[in-house]
This record gives sequence, C-alpha cells and structure tokens, in this order.
Amino acid sequence: MSMMASYWPGPQSFGSEAVAMNNKGFRRESFQSSTSDEDLVEIAGGALDFSTTDDDPPLDREMLGGFSLYNGGGMNGTSKMMDFLEEPLPGVGTYEDFNTIDWVREKSRDRDRHREIATKSKESTWALIQSVSDAFSGWLLMLLIGLLAGSLAGLIDISAHWMTDLKEGLCLQGFWFNHEHCCWNSTETTFEDRDKCPEWKSWSQLIIGHEEGAFAYVLNYFLYVLWALVFSLLAVSLVRGFAPYACGSGIPEIKTILSGFIIRGYLGKWTLLIKTVTLVLAVSSGLSLGKEGPLVHVACCCGNILCHLFTKYRKNEAKRREVLSAAAAAGVSVAFGAPIGGVLFSLEEVSYYFPLKTLWRSFFAALVAAFTLRSINPFGNSRLVLFYVEFHTPWHLLELVPFILLGIFGGLWGSFFIRSNIAWCRRRKTTKLGKYPVLEVLVVTALTAVLAFPNEYTRMSTSELISELFNDCGLLDFSKLCEYVNDFNSTKGDDLPDRAAGPGVYTAMWQLALALILKIFITIFTFGMKVPSGLFIPSMAVGAIVGRLLGVGMEQLAYYHHDWTIFSGWCSQGADCITPGLYAMVGAAACLGGVTRMTVSLVVIMFELTGGLEYIVPLMAAAMTSKWVADAIGREGIYDAHIRLNGYPFLEAKEEFSHKTLAMDVMRPRRNDLPLTVITQDSMTVEDVEAIINETTYSGYPVVVSRESQRLVGFVLRRDLIISIENARKKQDGIVSTSIIYFTDHSPPLPPSSPSMLKLRSILDLSPFTVTDQTPMEIVVDIFRKLGLRQCLVTHNGKLLGIITKKDVLKHIAQMANQDPDSILFN
Amino acid sequence: MSMMASYWPGPQSFGSEAVAMNNKGFRRESFQSSTSDEDLVEIAGGALDFSTTDDDPPLDREMLGGFSLYNGGGMNGTSKMMDFLEEPLPGVGTYEDFNTIDWVREKSRDRDRHREIATKSKESTWALIQSVSDAFSGWLLMLLIGLLAGSLAGLIDISAHWMTDLKEGLCLQGFWFNHEHCCWNSTETTFEDRDKCPEWKSWSQLIIGHEEGAFAYVLNYFLYVLWALVFSLLAVSLVRGFAPYACGSGIPEIKTILSGFIIRGYLGKWTLLIKTVTLVLAVSSGLSLGKEGPLVHVACCCGNILCHLFTKYRKNEAKRREVLSAAAAAGVSVAFGAPIGGVLFSLEEVSYYFPLKTLWRSFFAALVAAFTLRSINPFGNSRLVLFYVEFHTPWHLLELVPFILLGIFGGLWGSFFIRSNIAWCRRRKTTKLGKYPVLEVLVVTALTAVLAFPNEYTRMSTSELISELFNDCGLLDFSKLCEYVNDFNSTKGDDLPDRAAGPGVYTAMWQLALALILKIFITIFTFGMKVPSGLFIPSMAVGAIVGRLLGVGMEQLAYYHHDWTIFSGWCSQGADCITPGLYAMVGAAACLGGVTRMTVSLVVIMFELTGGLEYIVPLMAAAMTSKWVADAIGREGIYDAHIRLNGYPFLEAKEEFSHKTLAMDVMRPRRNDLPLTVITQDSMTVEDVEAIINETTYSGYPVVVSRESQRLVGFVLRRDLIISIENARKKQDGIVSTSIIYFTDHSPPLPPSSPSMLKLRSILDLSPFTVTDQTPMEIVVDIFRKLGLRQCLVTHNGKLLGIITKKDVLKHIAQMANQDPDSILFN
Repeated sequence: MSMMASYWPGPQSFGSEAVAMNNKGFRRESFQSSTSDEDLVEIAGGALDFSTTDDDPPLDREMLGGFSLYNGGGMNGTSKMMDFLEEPLPGVGTYEDFNTIDWVREKSRDRDRHREIATKSKESTWALIQSVSDAFSGWLLMLLIGLLAGSLAGLIDISAHWMTDLKEGLCLQGFWFNHEHCCWNSTETTFEDRDKCPEWKSWSQLIIGHEEGAFAYVLNYFLYVLWALVFSLLAVSLVRGFAPYACGSGIPEIKTILSGFIIRGYLGKWTLLIKTVTLVLAVSSGLSLGKEGPLVHVACCCGNILCHLFTKYRKNEAKRREVLSAAAAAGVSVAFGAPIGGVLFSLEEVSYYFPLKTLWRSFFAALVAAFTLRSINPFGNSRLVLFYVEFHTPWHLLELVPFILLGIFGGLWGSFFIRSNIAWCRRRKTTKLGKYPVLEVLVVTALTAVLAFPNEYTRMSTSELISELFNDCGLLDFSKLCEYVNDFNSTKGDDLPDRAAGPGVYTAMWQLALALILKIFITIFTFGMKVPSGLFIPSMAVGAIVGRLLGVGMEQLAYYHHDWTIFSGWCSQGADCITPGLYAMVGAAACLGGVTRMTVSLVVIMFELTGGLEYIVPLMAAAMTSKWVADAIGREGIYDAHIRLNGYPFLEAKEEFSHKTLAMDVMRPRRNDLPLTVITQDSMTVEDVEAIINETTYSGYPVVVSRESQRLVGFVLRRDLIISIENARKKQDGIVSTSIIYFTDHSPPLPPSSPSMLKLRSILDLSPFTVTDQTPMEIVVDIFRKLGLRQCLVTHNGKLLGIITKKDVLKHIAQMANQDPDSILFN
Repeated sequence: MSMMASYWPGPQSFGSEAVAMNNKGFRRESFQSSTSDEDLVEIAGGALDFSTTDDDPPLDREMLGGFSLYNGGGMNGTSKMMDFLEEPLPGVGTYEDFNTIDWVREKSRDRDRHREIATKSKESTWALIQSVSDAFSGWLLMLLIGLLAGSLAGLIDISAHWMTDLKEGLCLQGFWFNHEHCCWNSTETTFEDRDKCPEWKSWSQLIIGHEEGAFAYVLNYFLYVLWALVFSLLAVSLVRGFAPYACGSGIPEIKTILSGFIIRGYLGKWTLLIKTVTLVLAVSSGLSLGKEGPLVHVACCCGNILCHLFTKYRKNEAKRREVLSAAAAAGVSVAFGAPIGGVLFSLEEVSYYFPLKTLWRSFFAALVAAFTLRSINPFGNSRLVLFYVEFHTPWHLLELVPFILLGIFGGLWGSFFIRSNIAWCRRRKTTKLGKYPVLEVLVVTALTAVLAFPNEYTRMSTSELISELFNDCGLLDFSKLCEYVNDFNSTKGDDLPDRAAGPGVYTAMWQLALALILKIFITIFTFGMKVPSGLFIPSMAVGAIVGRLLGVGMEQLAYYHHDWTIFSGWCSQGADCITPGLYAMVGAAACLGGVTRMTVSLVVIMFELTGGLEYIVPLMAAAMTSKWVADAIGREGIYDAHIRLNGYPFLEAKEEFSHKTLAMDVMRPRRNDLPLTVITQDSMTVEDVEAIINETTYSGYPVVVSRESQRLVGFVLRRDLIISIENARKKQDGIVSTSIIYFTDHSPPLPPSSPSMLKLRSILDLSPFTVTDQTPMEIVVDIFRKLGLRQCLVTHNGKLLGIITKKDVLKHIAQMANQDPDSILFN
C-alpha cells in the first residue's frame, strides 16, 4: 500500500479550470465527432427531450451581441494562447447553454476564493477592507434586489390598474388617472356615488355623450373587447419579437435553473424589460391570468442582473443561485405583501439548495421589497397586502365540515386543471396549433372579453373580484353581495347578525356561478400561451367564488333554520355566526393548494393577509384536504407537470425514489455496449488521446492506471484536455504526436530516444465521486440530489466499470415512473 | 472488466441487520480487546471527550429495568440462537448508547418497509387499510404531540404561576388560587385596587395580622427566601435523585440527538416527568431562568414517548428524528404562542435533517399545541402569546439609530454572557465545585432571593417583568412605569402624547438599573446548574430593561428638546412619537439574538407577539446588528458553546469547513501506523477472522479481494460477523476453525479434502462509501454532513488505503479550529 506525498492539486485543479465541464462537447466545430444516440453527452434524447421545449429557441440577440448573462467573460477567448497553467483562460469555468452545473466544484471554488481573501486580509488594511466589503456585498445585493423588485412591482400594479380601467373609460382630469384616483377628490360622500364621479367618463359618454341605451352599451362592449385585443396583441408581439422567454409564469424554469441548469438569457435584461411590459398588458387585457407567478420571474431577473455588480456572484453559479432563491422570495413578498410567506414559498416550492444563510438573506430581501412596495403605495390604502381582510366573528368547530368540503373541491379542481392544461399544452406542442401563437392569444382574448363584459363579476379585474369576495359585509358596504334585508331592530351593537339575502345577493349568486364556469374553462386555455401568465389569481378566483357561494348558502341556511340541531349551539336568531368572506378565503386557499401543492407557504401567505392566528385552522384544514385529494389523483403540481412536459432536467427533491434498482442497471456502458472510454495514466500518446477526443463526444474521461487493471486514478475533462494539448503543441518544445501523456507525479521510465513527454496532472480531478455497482439507486439518487453532482463513476471490486450522469439518473427515474402506473396517471 | 449478475443484497443486508453498527465494539465482555488510543472505535478521547460530560452518568434505572427508549427490544437477545438469516435477532438494528446512527441505512430501511407495505397493499383490502393507516400515522402522531405538549405547557404555566405567588401569600378563598385568580371576582373596580383584594393575604397578614411595619416586611422577606430555598432544594433533589438528564435547557443535547447521536433515556418517561415537575419548582423559586428552553425538551420527550405507539417511528432512528424536529417546533410554539416562529426555530436552530414533509408536519404539530394551550387559557386572557403587545404609534426612521445601539448592546452582552458562562461551567466541571450541585443551587437561590426581594422588579417573576416592560402606557395603566405627569389639556383624542416623567418613572428607572445588574450577573451562574433552566427569558429581561431605560430616556429627550433638529421633523410638542415599550421589545430581541444567534426565527417569534409587520424592521435591524457584533467576538452561540464544552459529537451544518487538508491527512491508519485491518473475500479461515475480532475493537472491517491487491469489495460489521460465525459453528455442519470464510458469490476452488466453507455474502455491505485520498476535506465534511455517514473508506488508484469515521472528521475540525486563533477566541 503506497502512501502518496501530500500533493495538493492547487486552485488550477479544484479552482476555476477543473470546473469547466460541459456536456455538449467542447468546440464541436473543430472536432467533428461521430455522435451516437447512446453517448453520455446527448442532451436531447429519450424521455428528456428539450430540443422541443414549449418555448421557441432563445433569441440569440444577447449571445450574438457578445453579451451573455451566464458567460462571464465570453467563450471566444479559447483561441488566445495563454499559458493556462499560470492564469486561467477567459471562458474557463463557465458553462455552455442548457447544461448542468457542478455544485460541488462551484462551492469549492467559492471556498478557494474565500480562503484567498481571508489570507490576504491579514496582510494589509486595504485587503482587510476588501474582505469586509466582500462579506457585506451579499447584504447590499439583497437590499438592491428588494428595492428594485419592490419598485417594479409598484410600477406594474399602478400601470395595470390604469390600463384595466382604460378599457372602460377615461379620466377627464388627466388621462393618467385610473378610475379610483380620478374619483379620489370627488365631492360625493357615499361610497356608492364615488364610483360614479363626474370626472370619470365611460367611452360611450365620451363619444356619444350619454351612457344609457342599447347603443351606448354596445359601444362600451365593443371598445372593451377592442382594447383587450390591442393589449394582448401588443403583449404577444413583444414576447415573440424580443424575448420569447418572457412568456408563461416562469416558475417551472426558475425551479430548473435553481436546481443547477443553465438557460442563458432566461433571466436577462431583455426578458426583464419585456416581461415587465407585457405582464402589464396581459393583465390589463382581462385574460384569466394573474401577475403573481411572473412577478417571481421579474424579481429573479432583477437578482440575476444585479449579480453582475459583484464579482463574487457574477462568477459563481452556485452563489448566484443562492441570490436567485432570495429574489424569488422577494417576488412572492411583493406579489402578496407577505414577506414570511414569500420566504417559505421560496424554501418549499422553488429552491433547491437553501442553506440557512440564504434563509436569513431571503427574509431581508423580502422585507425590503415589501416595504418599498408599501412606500409606493399602489393600492392607495397604505396596506401592504393585495387583499386585506378583517373578519369580526370567530368560526365554529362544525364549520370545519364545509371547509373540508371546500378542500375536496380544491383538490379535485386542482387535478382536473392540471390534467386538462397539460393535455392542451401537449396538443399545442404536437399539433399545428403551436405554430400560430399570436392568433391563439387573440382568439382566447376575444372569447374572454366577449364573455366577460356582460357579467359584472368577470368584467372587473380578477384581483378586484377576489377582494370583493373575501370582503366581510359591513354596514357601509354597498356591493350587491352585501344587499341583505336589513332588519335594524335586531341589530345589536356593531356586529351584523345573519340576515335574509336581498334580491342583490340572489342576482350576485347566479352571476358568480356564470363567472365560475367561465373562469374554470378559460383558464385551462390561457395558462401556457405566449404571454406572461400567472396561475395564482385565477385559481384563487375559482376557489373564492365557490367558497362565497357555499358561505352565502350556509348563512341563509343558518338564518332560516337556526333551530336545527347543528345550528342551535352557536347560531341563535339574530346572531352573527357565519362569515361568507371567510369561506371565500378558505376556498381560494384550497384551490391554490390543489393546483400548486403548496402547503406551509400557502397557509402563511393567507395568514399574513388576515394577520390573525384565528383563521389558520380552517385554512390548514382546507389546504391539507386539498393536497391529499389532489395527490391521490396525480402526484405532480402544475409546475412539476410543466417541468416534465418540457423535459427540463430537474431532479425533484421532494419525491422519494423507491425502486429496487442498482447502480449497475443505470450506468453506461450497458451490458452489451463497448467498454467505457478511458485514458491511461502514463502510456497513451498525444495521438491516442486526440483520437479518443475525436471519436467520442463525452465531456470527460476517467483516467486509469492501465487498461488491464482498470484501477481509477481520476477524471479529466474533455475541454481541459483539448486546451492543454493545443497549448503544449504550440508552446512546449518537443511535443509531437507520439509524445506520451502522463498524469502521474513522476514521469514513467522510457528509453531516452523517445520524444519529450507531456505532464497533465494539474488538469486531473483526483477526487471523482465513485459508488460501487451494487449501490441501490435510491442511495445514488440521494447522493446526486444532496451533493448536486453531474456525474459519478461506478466501480466493482476497485475496478472502474462505468459512469452515471445526472441525465442517466433522470432518465432512469422517468422510466421507472412510466413502469409504475400508480405514480403517473396522466401521461 | 467483469459484469456481475444483478444480485440484490436483500433486506438482510440493507435492512435491519446491516444497520446494527456500534462504535464501542460489540460485546466487550466476551472479547477482551487490546484497546489502543488511536483505534477507530474509541469514543472518549482527544478533543472530543464525553466521558467527562457536564452531566452525571445516566441513571441506569431505565436500562436496568430492561426498558430503554432507544432500544426497541433490548440487547439481551444476542445469546438466543435463532437463524438470523431468516428472521432478524431481537436487538439487531438498534444502536448502543452514545453512538451515532447511520442516516443512509436508516432511510434505506424505511424505504424497504415502505416498499413492502406498498406491495402488500395491492393484495388485500386489509393490507390496503393498513397501508393507508401507516401513511396517516405520522399526522396522528403530530396531533397527539400537539395535544400533549400543549396540555403540559398549560399545566406548567398554571402551576408555576400559583407557586410563584405562594412565595408572597395565600388565597383565603382556596389555597389553589393564584393572586390574580383570587382577586378575579373582587368587587374593587380599579385595576390598582384589584391587586389588593381582601381575599389575598400576604404571609405577614396571615401570621401577624397586618402588613405594615418593619417586622411584617422582614417576615415576608424571610418567607420569600424560605419558599425559594424549599422549591429549589426540591428541584435539585428530584433531578439528582431521579433524572439527571432533566437539568439545563436541553437544547444542546437535543441538537446533538437530532444530528444522529444516541443518548438513551434523555427523552424518556422519567426525564419528562421529572423535568415537568422540577421546571415548575425552578421557575417558582425565582431563580433567574426561564421555562422556554426546557419546554422544548419536554415537547421532545412527549414526541419520543409517543413514537412508541407506532412501529414505523419506534423502530427507525431517522424517522424518529423527524418527529422530534416537529416536537421541538411544538415546544417553542407553546413557549411563546408563536407557531410559525416555532417551526422556523426548529428549522434554523435545532434540526439537522429537515425535509419538507417535516416542515409541514411541524407546522401542524405547532398549531395543535398552540390551540391546545389557548383552550387551557393559562393566562386568563384568551391570548395565545406570552407577552401580548399592541403599540399605537409608528416608529420613525431616525429611531433606527437607538435600535442599532440596542443591537450592539445585545451582541456585546451575548458574547460576554457566553464567555463568562462557559468559563464558569468549565470551572464547575474541573474543580471541586461540581461535586456539590445541591449546595450550589441553594447558595445561588439564596443569593437571588435575598437580593431580589427588596426590588419590586426583581421580586416579580421575570416574565411578568418583561410583560410590564413591553407594555405601552395607556390611560388606564397604574404601574409605576406609567406614572407620567398627566397634562390632560394637551391630550388629543385617544393617543397619549409624550409627557414629562413623574416621580414614579424615576424610581422605576433606578430600580430597573439595579435589577439589570442583578440579572446580568446571577444569570451567568444560574445557567448550567443542576435544575431545568432556560435562557430565553433572562436574556430577554436584560434586553428589555436596557431597552426600556433607553426608550424612556429618548422619550424625555424628545419631550424636553422637541425643538432639536433631529426631533423637529416628527416630534412636535404634545405629539406621541416615542414608544418606550417598543424599545424594550427591540432590546429583548437584540439580547436574545446575541446569546442564541437566532435570526429569522427570532424576528418571526417577535412578529407573532405583536402581529404587525410594522415593527419587523426595527426588530430585524437590532437582530442583525446583534448577530454581527456577537459573531465578530466569538462565532458560537450559547448552545454550540455548550455542545463543544461537553464534547458532543455534533457536526455543525452551518459552519463551513475551510481548511486545505486532504482526506489522506485525516484517515486512519496514519503514515506510520500499522496497515488497515482488512478481511479478504475468499482466503481467510474462521480462526483468522476470530483472531482479528479479538485483537481489534473496530466496529467493522473492509473486505478486499486479496491482501496484495487491496481492492475493496465491501464492508462487514463486527457485530454481524460475530453473530454469523457463532451461529454457523453451532448450527451448520462441518464448520471448524480451519473452514474458509468467503464473501464471493461462488465458493473458491479448493481441494475436496478441506472442511466445508462458510458463505457470508449476505452480511456484506456491498456499497460502502469511498473517496479518494486526494479529496479535499471540505468535500468530505460536506458528504458526511449531507448524507449523515458514519464512516467512509479512502482509496488511492482503486486500492483501499484507509478509513475516515465521523469521529475522525470531528476531531480534525476541532484540531483545525484550535490551530486557527481567529475562529475560537475563548478556549
């Protein structure tokens, strides 16, 4: 057993260069490789096909312009002939597009950087200051992300509000006022009249001078649809023309990016700009979509762009992902005004690697964002939250029955929605439909607008609708939903007792029922179109409508039958015992839970809306029921379903892999394949190695002691090999095609007549991960997940046998899932 | 390159038996091993010494009684001769006391169990029901934990309240009423007079009939001290006599247990019972300690005991730790009435392995516990929270300056406290002091009581004090702290403007200053004594006093100098601009943060106390400053410092290991040691193996192809080897000392005359974890942390070179930390 000298490979090996893995094979243009379907580097094959992703291929604007978000220094530096052993070549340490990062190496690199700074900081005061500023740069970055995300959210809120109102009319005082602001200083005193202030003119008033009559109605109708079409046409054109990545909610892709995948330009400047603009347009067009999911995308773009201000984050993919996790939290924080909920959303739903440090920083970013938004005050009520609710009556234990019913409805609706939406999206991908995205958007918009206008509850924006449904009817409310038969004699104190519903309530009921049907169906076709579209608001709207309907039903039941045994305990005549607004809220939580499968974050977001611990139990009961029901029908939430539909290489951390396969069943080469391509440590010539590089497209090669023993020495990257050989041929004397390449510490003994040898130990990764061929795949999957590996070598009795890449693992999981009919019901 | 047949080692190997690792060497009594200091199994050596833990050796009551919480079936089954290949022996799959569990194997076992249930569930309806009930047993367990923890917390609150008041007097209506309840139905109408209701008699009133005069004061004083001494004597005697593990806060030990260590009886029935009782006594005795930390311990005991109801959790150490994480959340939830804060505390501070499933369940347990406590209603105010606060005025941006000052104070105090307390605890461990725990407790109690009685603010219980300090002075408050010179002419509306302090406030100021000094010093000596003692409340008290002092100072400054530039913007005459209660709260958060280094959970707990997002920013500013200041002085929080003091094998997940060492520097054998003890796969006889077992105490042995090649085949556990050989010798014909043991699939070719051979492949772990000798230790540490390994084999060029155990890693980290003077300042 030989003891090696303690040789530290140095930063060249564990630092920037060894990390420069890329799956697609480096510089495909110079090495015409014979690609095989089963090779290790194919990225678009089998179950994991993302050459056919939902999105168009990325606009190469950014890459062509020489600017790329993920590629710090550009890839064009490889032709420069620098001595890479002394200084890393530009482009080294970055990844190609659509590749997976290696978390272990990235984190190693950051530790190296940190060590260097720590060592230097003892030398001079300036270096000490630099080290301190390095330590605080993370906090500064969080502050900036919070400020930017909060400001953008405020901007989006204000613009969307204004443009939504523009569909119905204009403010004479100044066209830039929305309806509410226009009537702000109105002299009318009642709330009801305020809405009809003289400064605000509907289109019919402006054009034909009055609002009554069929013609005026038709005119308003026409202009409503027209504006909606104009907005959506603008939105889809901008997305198609400038930033195809700006469509959709963005959360599936962000999940994938956070798990270590690279989609260049997805979080770039153009995407940010276009997504912000088109989000406003899409929301204003009245389509059945929300701005919450896209706001997460917008916040992540902010995070990614601001990362460029700090070398620490610009150059390290792992560190950058920590920042993106925090940015996602800030996004939800501003979407709902719920900073804690945002952090938990990022932890539960979006993030992959979420160390405690990130938790703390996410919280900071989320708070800053929330406070920035509040100081912009887009809702004009000094409230942070989108739907501020305050309920006055406690709930009774028996009410858990309707709450659980709402949970069951939420679960059923959630899985119905996921199934139908995925089926429709698959249809869009596979049929001609996908070829006409602009037409599709226009048709859906026209349909939505035409059907929405006649119904008051669909004509208003969806968030207004939810707000109204959540609302607890007070004495001063004049909405139709609160039109009860007021019997002031039985009123005791401030509390409003249960009352008989007036005609307004009955009208509202059937209008809501119609709205429900419209929302349910139109949302299926809307989510996935080529415009920014979030799911939170439409899901919540469906749930809120159902909840309110049930709530009013319960209320009337309690009013007319307060002598029934179930009501007698808590609902005496004239008592205020049922809050329909609470039912709406519970229903919204249930439906949102059914679609996204969020749990804690959902309840906490809802808790932050009401601020009372009081209502957590109903919310929790509904969310739990909804998740169980939905999970029983199909395991995946909407985001995971879209990830699978698009074939993103996402290794789900929540699902346990539970099949009894072994590493040897998954590794390449398979039983009848050619043996693994390896490089020997001290017997191959430059020629031999170049032949291997030309014949294969693998991104790296194991180095072994000898072909016979197959004992593993290390792992060398294709890219490093090419650079080193090219460099040595040009710069080092006596390196010819017959020169021996050696990876050992000392040169092998050779006859003196042979040409000078090439030592490449410095590019060898001496600590590749290995498992034995008998390791159960459940453990291998665990290792890949927890350590964030890109590949792992397989040995048997100390001999190298094969290799497992992340892609192999993903393919295997997909295969096993397909074999097992229980786990996936919709395929 | 040979391809092996797909051989699945089966549940024997990955299931229950292979897990039966124990570090101390199995059955030490039968194999007299030559222990060496440097062997792999020593558990009490070097920097990690826990034969000399702070606590007395565990009372063997539980173990002697044959009942042990961690040992499902007892260890005495090893002598029974069952065919273990068919059915696992009792005791197999459990761990010895003070050992580390193997997370990978435990999780594998659970997946096996799960697979089995899933397979069976397709066969019959009964099995299906069982599978469903298995899936829901986790939720049921959470419900039970919540109910039990909530009830116990209520019980503790009520008893402690009553006994605290008992020190001052008695209720004539019934001795079981506390002061507040006694005066509940009093006819006095003002709040001030209510406290002096005739039903409540102080001791002097009861004994000598009146309360005035020096003698009455001395009598009350004497009885106060006497009661305190009686309570604390009872507490320390019970702890010493029945459950030594019941002392302290328990959080350091729970952190260690959750990280995978086994301390048998630490979460047992006796500990629960004694801790509950002595916690009440200790709190009532007036010592400077809180009940929050111990409540976490109590909740974890509940969790552990309730685990015994479900096989799934009883038999699996990893699953049980998930439950304990949730129980810890429930503990904090009832301690502060903050369920979300509790979950985040468990996530941030206590837990090691916290999958998302646990997050959701923890949240459920925390909520149930909080609601159980609320329905018990121990504070009599229907409030969930310990210190309910409601502030009326917003804060101004400039106030961030004093808030940050409070943060700095908190950080300084935190590190001062940690240093002094650790120094004192070390003194207790190393000198004679540790031999007289009862005397120590009595002396400290006497000192506390004698010094506390004269000062109103120290005489009351610490939580009452904090409550009063947090309080915002309203018009109806009659505490001394609210004795302002009321100028009702300038009062506008309900808001109280800033006022000149009256004489009461000045008296309160210097009394608080004295209380501060007492609290600061006495807490150092109190924490770590042999009674249950929490740190949260004393830390918060120190911070709250300082905060209130600063707040009143600021208030008076603003009152007298409202024309100063800094005040002019927001503090006009007669305006209500400074809330001293908020300062107290911020100060409390800062000090608690300095001591425990909590961040998000701290802010969220405080947020849940007020319920307003409004005050998060001040809290966050203080908590952040406090953490930064404290971290700059010493990296460890109080719990980590105690873990290190007691030498628990805790692998900190938060700290990055940042030294440039390699696996070869850490592995055993060292350079000059004897080579690693290995077993060959097909050439050693029973005799040879028994000799190895007798000569060494290692818990397991690597199996290699041959001594010459040193190619790794697998890892076999000492315990499995002993059982198998013993079993084979008795049961299998022809097994003699010269029989060959083989681990291969097929028997090696041997002459027909040789004795029959023993095949032991089924006990071989074919997937041991390996790293190369060149792997940086930072990566090795990461692997140990994330996968929860117990040991890892080290190879070089495919040859087995050595082994690294978790203990080696811990020792190495401690060594490196000692070399680096920056990282540990107090040693």
